[in-house]
Amino acid sequence: MNHVRRREALRELTRAAELDAVLVTDLVNVRYLTGFTGSNAALVVDAADTEGDERRTRLVTDGRYTVQAGEQVPELPTIIERACAVAAVTASVGDGARRLGFESDQVTVDAHAALLAVAAELAAGAGTAAELVRAPGLVQALRVVKDDSELAALRAACAAADAALADLIAAGGLRPGRTERAVADDLERRMREHGADGPSFDTIVAAGGNSAIPHHEPTDAVLAAGDLVKMDFGALSGGYHSDMTRTVVLGRPADWQRELYALVARAQAAGRAALRVGSEVAAVDGAARQVIVDAGRGDEFSHGLGHGVGLQIHEAPALSATGAGTLAAGMTVTVEPGVYLAGRGGVRIEDTLVVRPDGAELLTLTSRELLAL
Amino acid sequence: MNHVRRREALRELTRAAELDAVLVTDLVNVRYLTGFTGSNAALVVDAADTEGDERRTRLVTDGRYTVQAGEQVPELPTIIERACAVAAVTASVGDGARRLGFESDQVTVDAHAALLAVAAELAAGAGTAAELVRAPGLVQALRVVKDDSELAALRAACAAADAALADLIAAGGLRPGRTERAVADDLERRMREHGADGPSFDTIVAAGGNSAIPHHEPTDAVLAAGDLVKMDFGALSGGYHSDMTRTVVLGRPADWQRELYALVARAQAAGRAALRVGSEVAAVDGAARQVIVDAGRGDEFSHGLGHGVGLQIHEAPALSATGAGTLAAGMTVTVEPGVYLAGRGGVRIEDTLVVRPDGAELLTLTSRELLAL
Repeated sequence: MNHVRRREALRELTRAAELDAVLVTDLVNVRYLTGFTGSNAALVVDAADTEGDERRTRLVTDGRYTVQAGEQVPELPTIIERACAVAAVTASVGDGARRLGFESDQVTVDAHAALLAVAAELAAGAGTAAELVRAPGLVQALRVVKDDSELAALRAACAAADAALADLIAAGGLRPGRTERAVADDLERRMREHGADGPSFDTIVAAGGNSAIPHHEPTDAVLAAGDLVKMDFGALSGGYHSDMTRTVVLGRPADWQRELYALVARAQAAGRAALRVGSEVAAVDGAARQVIVDAGRGDEFSHGLGHGVGLQIHEAPALSATGAGTLAAGMTVTVEPGVYLAGRGGVRIEDTLVVRPDGAELLTLTSRELLAL
Repeated sequence: MNHVRRREALRELTRAAELDAVLVTDLVNVRYLTGFTGSNAALVVDAADTEGDERRTRLVTDGRYTVQAGEQVPELPTIIERACAVAAVTASVGDGARRLGFESDQVTVDAHAALLAVAAELAAGAGTAAELVRAPGLVQALRVVKDDSELAALRAACAAADAALADLIAAGGLRPGRTERAVADDLERRMREHGADGPSFDTIVAAGGNSAIPHHEPTDAVLAAGDLVKMDFGALSGGYHSDMTRTVVLGRPADWQRELYALVARAQAAGRAALRVGSEVAAVDGAARQVIVDAGRGDEFSHGLGHGVGLQIHEAPALSATGAGTLAAGMTVTVEPGVYLAGRGGVRIEDTLVVRPDGAELLTLTSRELLAL
């Protein structure tokens, strides 16, 4: 079972960091490690446990989720307690943990203070002093590489988005007179019809001058003939997020629109081609960015090239000029360069891909040709 | 303008806490104080500024949101920088702030370490030592009391949920043979038809035995004659969330269903009646809980009575046995007792209300009578 294997992988990282146990309070990480989807939980993973004996690896949640925890995580001992992290620390120290890692990139300053107080209380009471040790990013380090069940969910999410856009276009849903909001609602409804649990983030539909705003929220602005229409959207499937952007033209494209599109398409192809096992993420960003810089448009590509995608719409690795690290097989990322001409219009082309030993495989399959509707 | 007034109210709290400025990094709080809705931002509010001169009160966001920040927050100086909090601290210290509050209930241990490093760097450079001071909950203290524009948005969100449920029932959408998921999708679609921007959280539809799970996620389980069907859902409107639960019976209610419903309805009425200016939140929870305890069902009401609702679906104040504080006019809260009989079924009845000087006003208006369909 995947969750058992993931917890065992986390134990290896925990031992390597010389920790007795790690406290997981990020709910997405809890879900990754257990399948539990409630809104209040903590998990403590004890390095002394094994795949076959997880008696010290405990899930904590509150009374609303007693039944759900039993169904989703039957294999782990569960503690029912509203203050999940505090209860998890108490149990773990009781189990003998002395060096207890916590997710310092997720735990707030105040929550940390509460955990320190509990540790001090336990030390004063039973004389069992435990140290809370910063341990950021352990679970994220596992999550960047997707297993087959995750890739299947991502593929389903990408397919729902592809199908929704195809349906929208076939139904004449992209036409002058409709509002951005109507198109966004339409896309979201069609993703659901194709099996999505919902959109993976608030759908962006940006027409005309609005397309020059990278993250425009759909308004009652009306699509007009000659507009660039940029749609950035994705589907949620089994907890996994897809992410795709396409930009179309309503009617015959003007020369500047055609040139802008061709530039972004070249940059996007360069970015996709740079997705190789072992590539530095900053170099992948650079490969796409250079195309745009060479065209004198560097200032108008105002964001990073892409990001990891999975249980979160934005997760590691960041494909940006300042990103660190290299790509590994099984990482899923977006490649989404854009060029935005303020007041006129912008183009972004984005796909979700999985890094393979021999290059990258597209998970979003909609054509990247300029579509004139 | 509301945002200007809210920032001025925050300045008063900032001065009362003997801070020169406060760093706001919680995005919901940034939205409350500025109207900015981007996904990466920080705001620093300087106590030396006034409503008429906000030159040291700065919004920081990244290049994706340059245009949006200019449109949504034209009145504030904006800094474009990916590392928003660090840039905000740098600017604020440059403006002369020496005691700088931060949201210790939101800032992570690692983010705090980064801010401390910047402060140390600035001290080493210009010799301007600034202290980072824990200042949790300042903006939340303002947010609990809603102004008229917020109440209008909440009213619209509640109305969309009311209308969606009325439509669903009128269309025969609650009938044996449909799946929980189909009913949930149907409710969400109808809320959109009534002007909602979307659901305010993942809609809960739980039929038969599933209704005994307080936070059940809709499945392909099929509604059957005789089932209790519990629906917990809400609409999002202008950033504000509504929250309502209704439980119906498919067909003629059995005696145990009728009794269970009557018990929860009595408890809910008692909770609503206890919503008065000056009431202790724990006493409000107690008023409803006592009804259920007296009926011998205390153990089967496994969660708090309610919660504040506004820009977030769950916000202060918590109406629970362990909650602290008293109610004030203009607070918007839910009242949602439930009794869950494992394996048989559960009933929850929930409304969103606003506390008024002379009691509480219902914002969700759907009947609370037991509906037999």
